[in-house]
Parts: sequence; C-alpha cells; structure tokens
Amino acid sequence: MSKKLTSRAEDYSKWYNELVVKADLAENSAVRGCMVIKPYGYAIWEKMQAELDRMFKETGHQNAYFPLFVPKSLFEAEEKNAEGFAKECAIVTHYRLQNDPDNPGKLRVDPNAKLEEELIVRPTSEAIIWNTFKGWVQSYRDLPLLINQWANVVRWEMRTRLFLRTAEFLWQEGHTAHETKKEALAEAELMNNVYATFVEKFMAIPVVQGLKTESERFAGAEETYCIEALMQDGKALQAGTSHFLGQNFAKAFDVKFANKEGKQDYVWATSWGVSTRLVGALIMTHSDDNGLVLPPSLAPNQVVIIPIYKNEEQLEAITEVVNNIMKDLRSKNISVKFDNRDTFRPGAKFAQHELQGVPLRIAIGARDLENGTVELARRDTLTKEVVSLDGLVDKVEGLMTEIQDSLFNKALDFRNSHNTEVDTFEDFKKVLETKTGFISAHWDGTPETEDKIKEITKATIRCIPLEGKEEEGICVYSGNPSKRRVLFAKAY
Amino acid sequence: MSKKLTSRAEDYSKWYNELVVKADLAENSAVRGCMVIKPYGYAIWEKMQAELDRMFKETGHQNAYFPLFVPKSLFEAEEKNAEGFAKECAIVTHYRLQNDPDNPGKLRVDPNAKLEEELIVRPTSEAIIWNTFKGWVQSYRDLPLLINQWANVVRWEMRTRLFLRTAEFLWQEGHTAHETKKEALAEAELMNNVYATFVEKFMAIPVVQGLKTESERFAGAEETYCIEALMQDGKALQAGTSHFLGQNFAKAFDVKFANKEGKQDYVWATSWGVSTRLVGALIMTHSDDNGLVLPPSLAPNQVVIIPIYKNEEQLEAITEVVNNIMKDLRSKNISVKFDNRDTFRPGAKFAQHELQGVPLRIAIGARDLENGTVELARRDTLTKEVVSLDGLVDKVEGLMTEIQDSLFNKALDFRNSHNTEVDTFEDFKKVLETKTGFISAHWDGTPETEDKIKEITKATIRCIPLEGKEEEGICVYSGNPSKRRVLFAKAY
Ligand SMILES: [Zn+2]
Ligand SMILES: [Zn+2]
Repeated sequence: MSKKLTSRAEDYSKWYNELVVKADLAENSAVRGCMVIKPYGYAIWEKMQAELDRMFKETGHQNAYFPLFVPKSLFEAEEKNAEGFAKECAIVTHYRLQNDPDNPGKLRVDPNAKLEEELIVRPTSEAIIWNTFKGWVQSYRDLPLLINQWANVVRWEMRTRLFLRTAEFLWQEGHTAHETKKEALAEAELMNNVYATFVEKFMAIPVVQGLKTESERFAGAEETYCIEALMQDGKALQAGTSHFLGQNFAKAFDVKFANKEGKQDYVWATSWGVSTRLVGALIMTHSDDNGLVLPPSLAPNQVVIIPIYKNEEQLEAITEVVNNIMKDLRSKNISVKFDNRDTFRPGAKFAQHELQGVPLRIAIGARDLENGTVELARRDTLTKEVVSLDGLVDKVEGLMTEIQDSLFNKALDFRNSHNTEVDTFEDFKKVLETKTGFISAHWDGTPETEDKIKEITKATIRCIPLEGKEEEGICVYSGNPSKRRVLFAKAY
Repeated sequence: MSKKLTSRAEDYSKWYNELVVKADLAENSAVRGCMVIKPYGYAIWEKMQAELDRMFKETGHQNAYFPLFVPKSLFEAEEKNAEGFAKECAIVTHYRLQNDPDNPGKLRVDPNAKLEEELIVRPTSEAIIWNTFKGWVQSYRDLPLLINQWANVVRWEMRTRLFLRTAEFLWQEGHTAHETKKEALAEAELMNNVYATFVEKFMAIPVVQGLKTESERFAGAEETYCIEALMQDGKALQAGTSHFLGQNFAKAFDVKFANKEGKQDYVWATSWGVSTRLVGALIMTHSDDNGLVLPPSLAPNQVVIIPIYKNEEQLEAITEVVNNIMKDLRSKNISVKFDNRDTFRPGAKFAQHELQGVPLRIAIGARDLENGTVELARRDTLTKEVVSLDGLVDKVEGLMTEIQDSLFNKALDFRNSHNTEVDTFEDFKKVLETKTGFISAHWDGTPETEDKIKEITKATIRCIPLEGKEEEGICVYSGNPSKRRVLFAKAY
C-alpha cells in the first residue's frame, strides 16, 4: 500500500485514475489505449455478466458468436454505420511475419502476405451479423431472431481512460430481427428497460431513460434509447444504449422474409449493448477518498473477516469460530473471505479491504471470543459497531440489503439535487459551471442549436427523457418555441 | 429438415461437416477460415466453460483480461515462441479508413494512418501477459500468480474446419508464475489432470495423458503435457495441452523476484489451454448417422417433451401433466424443454431433436393420459419404452447417469479396441491403414526417426504416455534401442 489517494475535491480525474490502479482493478498495457483488467476488476465484470446474461435469457435471447473481423466490403455496406466507425478502426492488412534480413532475431511483416481484402477488427458487429442473418431468415416462422454476443471490440480512440474509454473493450451486443416495426421498437424499449433495471438494482445507480437526439444517435440507427447516470463530479455517463435500426441493415444486407401473406418484406432490427465502461460508472458513483465502495450485489467478496491474534493458539480459537460464521453466511449466499494471511498485519489488511471496497468487514480478536462478540465495520458509512455472535448472520444479511439500498438512495439524492430546471441561457451556463449535473431546459429541436450549445458550453443533450411531459416553452438558446424539456450535461 | 446425413462409413469427413451445419452448431462465415458459432453450438460451449471455470477456481485460479493485440517488439521477444507463430498471424498495420476518391461510397485504408509499430492479433498471450507480469511480481510473496483468461485468438490456418481448426477460435489460456521449477511442473501436471477429468467426466471421452516429444511441443515450452482422444474414424485428437515453460518467458521479459533469502531469481512459468475444438471432439466421438449424440452433462436440453394431440382440448390436458413433470425434473436440476410449437408436426420434432442429440425424448399423447404413461426414447441407443408416470422423474434421473456412463464406456471400448502394440514397421503400416487408432510402438527417441515415420505414414507421436512403463525394446523404424513405447496415430 503506497501513500494516500488524491482526494476527489483536489482532482477528481486523478482520484479516479489512482483508485483504479491502487484498488487493483485495471492498468494500462503496452498497447496504446488498451487496458489489462486485473483479477479483482474482472471479478466485478464477471458478476455483472452473470446477472445481465440471466436477464437476457429470461427475456428470450440466446448467445452466439460471430467473427472478430469484418471484410471491408461488408463493413462499408451500411453507409451511415460505416461512416460512423471508419475513422477509428484497427485494420488487418497482412497475415504473416518473416525474419527481418536487416535485423537478425527480429521479425517484419511479410510483404508477400498481403490480404486481397482488408479486414476490420469489429468496432461493433452489425455488418458481419446481418450478413449472417441473411442465411437464417426466410419466413416469418424464423422470426423474431433474438441473439446476443459477449465479445471484445476495438475502436481506435485517441484519448483513453481505464474502463471509461479504451481502444479495446469487452461488451455484449444484442442483435435482433423482427417481423414488424412495432415489435422491433418494443424490443429496443424492453432492452433499455432491462439495462435500467440492472443498473439501478445491481449497480445501485439511478438512471434516466430517454431517447438520443439525431446527432447523438448510433450510426445507422433510427432511434437510440439510452440510460444516463450522473457521476459525483456532476458529469453524466451514458451507461447503455438500445437502438431501433429500422430496416437499414436489412436493406443493406438484403435480409427479407416471407410474411404470413406470403409476401416478401425486409425485417426490422434492433441492437443494444453495455460494456466494461459500466465498471467505470460503478467506481465513480459510489467510491470515496478512502477508495472503492462496492454495492453488495456486485462485490466479489461481500464480507471479509480479519482475525486479531497474538499467538497461534488464539488464531486457532478464532479460526474455529470463523469457520462456523463462514458456513452460516455461505448458506445464505453471502460471499465471505477469511483473510488469515500471516504476511500482513491487521492494520494493513483493514486498509487494503477499505481501498478495495469490501462492503462489510468483521474483525474478531481474543477479547471478542470471551465476550461472544465481533466488530462490524461498514465500508459505505465507515461506521463500526460491536455485535453479539448470536444473530450475527441475520444481522449481516440485513446489512447487505441496507447497504445496497443506502448506496442507491445516496446516489439518487445526489442525482436529484443535481438536476436543475433552467429557463435562460445565463442560468444554463451558471449552473453548468457551479452546481453542475443535469440541466433540464427547453430546446428548439434543431441540430444547429444543439451544436451551438455544445460549442459554447461543452454540454450535450444527454437525452429526451421518456418520462418527460409535454410543456410549452421557448428554447434556452434560440428563443424559438419548444414542446418539451431535454436533459443537458457535460458527459464522459 | 433437408435430406439425410451422409453416413460415416460413406465419408466420415463429409458426415462431420454436414452434421455441424444441419444440427445448427456452427457455419462458415464471410471471413476466410472464421466460423459463426450458432446458438445451439454456443450453448454447448457455455456449458463447457461453466464446468471448466469452476474447476479452475477450485484449484485457486483467478480470471483476468489482457489486450487482443501484441506489439511486434513484444511478440518477438521470446524467440522460439515468435518463430512458432510468426507464419500464421493476423497483423494490424493501420488504424483508420477514409473515403475512396476513386470509388464513391467505398472506403479505403488511410495511408496516413499507418501504425509506427505493427500489432499482432494474439495467437496466444504469453508475450503480452509476461510483459504485464513483470510489474506484478517483486517478491516471493507475490507468487504463485495463478491467472486464467477466456478469450478469442487468431491463427492464420490455411486449411480450416468448423470447430476443429479455425482462423479465429475461442479458448481459455492459463498463465502462471512460480517460485520453483518443482512448483511449476506440478502446476502443469495438475492442469493437465483437470483437463483429463473434465473431458472424461463431462464430455464422456476417455483420454490418454502424456508428454509431447520435442518436435511436437508448444513453441517456447520445455515440456508439454497433453490429453489425447480417439475419434470414431481412428484418428487422434489433441484435446488439451499444459506447458511447463521453464524460465524462458521470465528471461525474455525480465521477470525476477526476491526469494526468501532476498536473492533475485527468475520465476518459473506454465501455460495451458483448451478451445472450441473440444466441441468438435464431442461431436466426433459420440454422434451417429442420425446426427448428434450429446452426453447429458453438456446437453443444452437434457430432456425434450413432445405432445401428441389432435385438438386443443387434448393439448391442454397434456400440458397440465407436462407442467408437473417439468417442475419435478427441474427440481432435480434436469433441464427440460416442452416443444409445443404448433408450426411443426410431432414427426418433424422427433427428427429435429434426434439430429440435435437431445439425450432423452418424452412423448405424451391422449392414450398415455388415460393409461398414466409416457413414451421414453433414448438418443444414444435409439431405444424406446413406455413407462408409468409414477416414478418417471426417478427413472429419468437414473437414465441421465446411465446414458452418460454408457457413452463413456462405448467410447472407451472403441479406444481400447483401437490401441495396438506393434513391433515391426510392416505391422505399424498395416495397422495404420486397416485397423487405425493408436499404435503403441518403440521409438529410438530421435527427431529424425519421428520425422521419417511421419513422412512415410503420416502418423505422428501423439504422446509419451504418463502411465507407460519402462520396457526394453528396439525402435520400430530404426532398430535402435528404446526404453519405452510411445503412442503413434494419424491425428486431427
Ligand atoms: Zn439519454
Ligand atoms: Zn499426448
């Protein structure tokens, strides 16, 4: 354990970067913009995957796997999608290395092993998947096609940050095909709901569900649903998106089906995804100046038990009690780790588990054995209490729920107190610079105004909230009429 | 369902290719040598992953994730490893596309977006991982490092076959670092054992554990443990490998640690992997001329129930009974699917589930309801029996074990009857051409003899079996002295 973290107040961005590394979540690699996800960080991602995968299957989806590479001719087939990703993709041009005659022991690209057609490392898989769907769909009987893929994708981002924006990241991408526009729209909404439920229930992060404006939509989508969360520095983070793709990909890849009347029609599509970026959102929402704070639902270890002992005899007596506690906790599906390493002192262990955000710490020493007690310490509130061994397991079980709820409510309070309605551009700019957070304002619906506001303030329209009501008003920037408020914020 | 499969006797290779496609397991993609793993095939892989992942964690390993790309300078650092993979790797040279001025609407590689250093798409991750381990290991306290990664890798194979050999494949790769040679060797053996247990217990495929000869070893390894299985056509298939890497990677990437005496030493390494190739082994071992045969342990659906009805009323009465059966089966952790699609007739459903290898089919009609019976059909033996609803769940539970054991024993009988000791080269060639299978023969231990035998017969040394005993003999090819028999076979 090296010296303390930079505080959030001092430098929020530095605090985040240090925390990710010191809590052993991830680190930069030798490949520009690509990260190494360390075991502790990966364990959080695995827990996210397990819950999401269950939710996808419960809503009728099946997993499959499609190639990493997209031939250039397929990549460019859907023009808007291609345009959106062309400027940031890794391209395979050769398939062999050879010994470098000028540098003994070194290799160079074999100029004779040039591909006839370049391969794009997938930045997203619509093209390769829709080219495949063509063979899978003939009749309405083959629909809906409800497919999900867990995969790595590559987008050649110029400015990267661990978890939040990396050249390679892990994600899931759902790709579905439907008979009607209505069904496809319902699917896109359903999956945005699944994301909202997951992020609120498991990540303890409140989200706003909404629609993206045209300029913020996924390249090739006709409508993009999204969930937007608010970080502690008052910046928004897009946590998931679900796209209604219309018939764009069906037309680009000629995917038709015979409907019930026997007529040929193009199918309707959706795609939706969340990524390892969610780990970044989780870190930024709940953590504090002491380190990571994890909601029990996603903590690799929900409870850590630390023995305080002076000799082998005491450790043995403590271990006996701890074994019973662990058995009981596990029978309640509470994950627990007994940190009995003899290479570290209790203080160092306390510090490590605090930094790594274990929701609940139990310390147990010789005195506790005599009294039939243990010391409980909550990571979220940093409070401690001495409790009786009797009823400990029920107490811990209750605390898991309490901590989970408390984290959500704290984040919700923060979000609600950083959601400001403004009616003038002066107020808009002032709130953005001082209070930060979401700004609910009238907008005239034009990309020109959206651009101007972004240029002047760096705030973008995060979404047109689904729950927003119609309300006559005038655009905060142009003064033109507007029918509803939209959410602005600076964003990750 | 199109026409029947080619039979194994007619053309084993064609039978395999047709089966993979018709049973909806996988198909070729638009990318040369890369496959699409379809939902049914992926569901089998997911079941394999779940069991293996559990076994890795039970033996103390943690998952992590490392970059897809390996900078060329790291790739070439361990010379033997680099040499082994240089001729078959995909190379990223550019990071941007641009509009092609000569072809409106088309894209081309942007010549101004050339990477300073080329990136190799990982064919295996030793290089990038050992470059990372360098930062993780300082003292003996940091060891052992027991890491596993689930990932996609790319090897530019010229001749590919679905699951068995594809340019991109999915796998897991374990990478561990240890204080001593002894510990690293023990780890390599342990993981080979884990593979053997998994393949025998869950895949119902008997394996021989052994060591590879020098020429068959993994590039960069000092010793390669492996498990070898025998397919129905008498060819061997390497199902998993576990490598003792000595200090080769530690030296190439300068990974040293302070030992308990405070002295600096290089760490000792292992790596081990199994891949989607296992799905190919599973298919080829158990399936028959009617299609796929799956062991219950890995079947996405262990039981399928098909209603036979003439009207809505009958279907309702059947559904009521089926719902109870399903509830009871699921309470015993038996996965069951009720195929009540009204778009297919029972005969078509029977054919589909037979082709897809569902271990047990239950058919239930109006007559059965009267008699309190159902019809059970086993996929492995193709036998049917009418049984009482009373005790059905116990019966099914017993059959799951019986089918699993029966598949293993059948494969074991085949393997044992295709394992021939030969003492002359004439017999060697004769057995290889007629009886096929493993040939146990004396070999003089030289790569020259190994090469010659391969050149003449296409048989390779699959392994030096761990269970083989010392035995004086003379090499079947050279006549020189030999101390033990090794296993030869033609192989996938
Ligand atoms: Zn939004
Ligand atoms: Zn072997």
